[in-house]
Amino acid sequence: MGEAYSIYTCGDDEAIMPYITSANVACGFHASDPGVMHATVVLAKEHGVKVGAHPSFPDRDGFGRRYMKMDRKELRDAIIYQCGALKGFLEMEGMTLNHLKPHGALYGAAWIDEDVATACAEAAQVFGVPMYGTTGTMHETIWPKYTDVVWEIFADLDYDDEGRCIITREHKSVAPEQAVEQIMRVVKDGVIRSVNGKDVPTKAETICVHSDTPSAVAVAKAVRQAVDPYIERNGG
Amino acid sequence: MGEAYSIYTCGDDEAIMPYITSANVACGFHASDPGVMHATVVLAKEHGVKVGAHPSFPDRDGFGRRYMKMDRKELRDAIIYQCGALKGFLEMEGMTLNHLKPHGALYGAAWIDEDVATACAEAAQVFGVPMYGTTGTMHETIWPKYTDVVWEIFADLDYDDEGRCIITREHKSVAPEQAVEQIMRVVKDGVIRSVNGKDVPTKAETICVHSDTPSAVAVAKAVRQAVDPYIERNGG
Amino acid sequence: MGEAYSIYTCGDDEAIMPYITSANVACGFHASDPGVMHATVVLAKEHGVKVGAHPSFPDRDGFGRRYMKMDRKELRDAIIYQCGALKGFLEMEGMTLNHLKPHGALYGAAWIDEDVATACAEAAQVFGVPMYGTTGTMHETIWPKYTDVVWEIFADLDYDDEGRCIITREHKSVAPEQAVEQIMRVVKDGVIRSVNGKDVPTKAETICVHSDTPSAVAVAKAVRQAVDPYIERNGG
Amino acid sequence: MGEAYSIYTCGDDEAIMPYITSANVACGFHASDPGVMHATVVLAKEHGVKVGAHPSFPDRDGFGRRYMKMDRKELRDAIIYQCGALKGFLEMEGMTLNHLKPHGALYGAAWIDEDVATACAEAAQVFGVPMYGTTGTMHETIWPKYTDVVWEIFADLDYDDEGRCIITREHKSVAPEQAVEQIMRVVKDGVIRSVNGKDVPTKAETICVHSDTPSAVAVAKAVRQAVDPYIERNGG
Repeated sequence: MGEAYSIYTCGDDEAIMPYITSANVACGFHASDPGVMHATVVLAKEHGVKVGAHPSFPDRDGFGRRYMKMDRKELRDAIIYQCGALKGFLEMEGMTLNHLKPHGALYGAAWIDEDVATACAEAAQVFGVPMYGTTGTMHETIWPKYTDVVWEIFADLDYDDEGRCIITREHKSVAPEQAVEQIMRVVKDGVIRSVNGKDVPTKAETICVHSDTPSAVAVAKAVRQAVDPYIERNGG
Repeated sequence: MGEAYSIYTCGDDEAIMPYITSANVACGFHASDPGVMHATVVLAKEHGVKVGAHPSFPDRDGFGRRYMKMDRKELRDAIIYQCGALKGFLEMEGMTLNHLKPHGALYGAAWIDEDVATACAEAAQVFGVPMYGTTGTMHETIWPKYTDVVWEIFADLDYDDEGRCIITREHKSVAPEQAVEQIMRVVKDGVIRSVNGKDVPTKAETICVHSDTPSAVAVAKAVRQAVDPYIERNGG
Repeated sequence: MGEAYSIYTCGDDEAIMPYITSANVACGFHASDPGVMHATVVLAKEHGVKVGAHPSFPDRDGFGRRYMKMDRKELRDAIIYQCGALKGFLEMEGMTLNHLKPHGALYGAAWIDEDVATACAEAAQVFGVPMYGTTGTMHETIWPKYTDVVWEIFADLDYDDEGRCIITREHKSVAPEQAVEQIMRVVKDGVIRSVNGKDVPTKAETICVHSDTPSAVAVAKAVRQAVDPYIERNGG
Repeated sequence: MGEAYSIYTCGDDEAIMPYITSANVACGFHASDPGVMHATVVLAKEHGVKVGAHPSFPDRDGFGRRYMKMDRKELRDAIIYQCGALKGFLEMEGMTLNHLKPHGALYGAAWIDEDVATACAEAAQVFGVPMYGTTGTMHETIWPKYTDVVWEIFADLDYDDEGRCIITREHKSVAPEQAVEQIMRVVKDGVIRSVNGKDVPTKAETICVHSDTPSAVAVAKAVRQAVDPYIERNGG
């Protein structure tokens, strides 16, 4: 969230806030600017939503969805810079940093590149917060050595046969029912269905909806209405 | 300090550290990048030097020495972003933020523009740190309402008849003896001599040397060697 | 036009193209990126629309609507850089540069600051193209010394008692009838009505509609439908 | 050349100009700014040196020495933007664009990635200029389909066993005699000696010296003094 920039808007943060419990807030390297970050933190506060940092490769032109070759130390420092900047606004509003969730190409690179995965986890360790990540990837092999990890699943992305979401430059609209179906399969059966129809084992402790998916509000609302009663009846 | 950037160097931070007690560290908007900021914080730590934030207008092309028209809120948020980013590295190294000192055109604009002065002070208030500023300007009329102010004098800049330093795009070399003379006049007589030969009353609790002044190390060393014994004999 | 950026959209360039004869295309300093610039040039070509450069202060965060203090030479070079970049895409598509029209705060600064006005005109002179500008300002006193000037009037902005449009950070929606009324008064009577109800003499050879005004397409269409028959009957 | 930026300097362009015949001028994406580009073009003009464009991935933080994943079209447009911007200054000074030579990671990526190589060549084709490139790479298999290629050899870089120069983030000082030895082996025997002592066949029509190599001026001068008499005696 908070992926507006300058005069540009991106997603309807205000409409989606009621349906979420934690927000990944952009930190200025792929989207957002100081004014937007501050406004997003205030909005989250009003809705009792926890705020995590959503750092990126330094790539505003490409919305952080293009891979960049950076070494471990410069990447770690770039992440610390972004998380620190966000913490400035949290400090201003009397809030604390809840978690760290890499954005776009950085998230995907941390699945497969040990240096990238390590850089992210070192930053989370500095701030004493958990990572949000994907099972079956280097998120699982590297991150727990440094900090806690909360496993997440995406309601609005397709998955490959490895159980990894498919990161695209722009997010297409997703039917709420389809998102609910994808999520409930994870919640009930512990599997995600890949684009090739394969059921890949996975686990999820948090569900992610992208605020720039055109149908984001409807998806968030539908998923919430499907998952909440189920959890209430059957436990988390 | 920490005004290197990418492959570019700026000043000799390592050589100047032994002669200073607090450092104004660039936060990425006029100079520096995450790797340089981190290295500068580590260097300060090694020398027992306190670290203050040195935020700027968002103007890397102009090294923050060009005035930009920003409204109070967007400027305050831009400053909080920068200070927060620096605090990330301080947190990593177990240090705390010591003060806030605006850079270049932002420093000068805060002399005469109430919105700019207020934006700076609001940011300092968020972080509970003092400002470094100049007497006889809006620094003095506005900032104390929000936070403590430490009065400073520049060893390597010329002054106008209002007692304000003259901000230039590039810093010229200054003879150490001339810097010492300027500073000792302030320390002993409470006046700064302007470029027109006028002695303007001022006060100084901290002395600033710009690390990008070509003769910075010699100036810092000479000033230190002149001021320290005097303070020891006569009190601060 | 061409003020989209990264994943962000701005205005509906495709819908507005049929109603215009020349387009001011952003050059990357306040908006746009190479891909957007190229696509906008292609779109203009398809509609037989002439392309002018729309350079700005280097201020992507503020969409070029914040004044920056730059000296004449560095500003001129910044404008040449932007116009040259646009000409790259024009060369690719077999088109030529039609005119130069400064954007936002740069346009306004050129009303009152001789250095800014001169920097713009020097750049236009390099490329041998006319400026688009406002009567009763330094556009009129400075620019004709360097190059031709085409006088323009804005359909979607308010005017002050000096006959200068009021530049704002975001453009509000304007009723098409209101825009038509403002324009027809200029066309028929040679006056623009200010926000204070004063009729200020002006002249217009081209009419400007901002593509980021929410009602831009409707305004462009309505103005075109009102002005074209009048010109046909009465001459331009 | 022209890799200074803001207040930062990089190399001694003025000292190296007498020893070169063509200059690769940075276009603002990895280094340089409009003022520096203009000054560099003027300097080249004074020395009768031809000017080529030296475009880069959009990576000022990393001096364009970090690979970025961009698709063919957005990369081509990014290159056209940069070359066009440089042409603006050439037009101002009555000069023409001589060639196109990708910078840093873009140059290296074009050895092995068909999309990257194609994007570069398409841009050169738009401007009707030759590429500078390396034999034995995709420069040789792809570029000649689009435009002429001038084969080049680096005086100040090490080479691998494939005959490709080794691109590093910072350039280390090179002894002039060592550079002369490397170049004369190419000129006389048509081989480049790799870091492993292997002689790899290569050819060179132009010799490149990086202006940010600390010993650049001495290297350029020494190479020129060794090569020129040899060519005079034996032909090019």
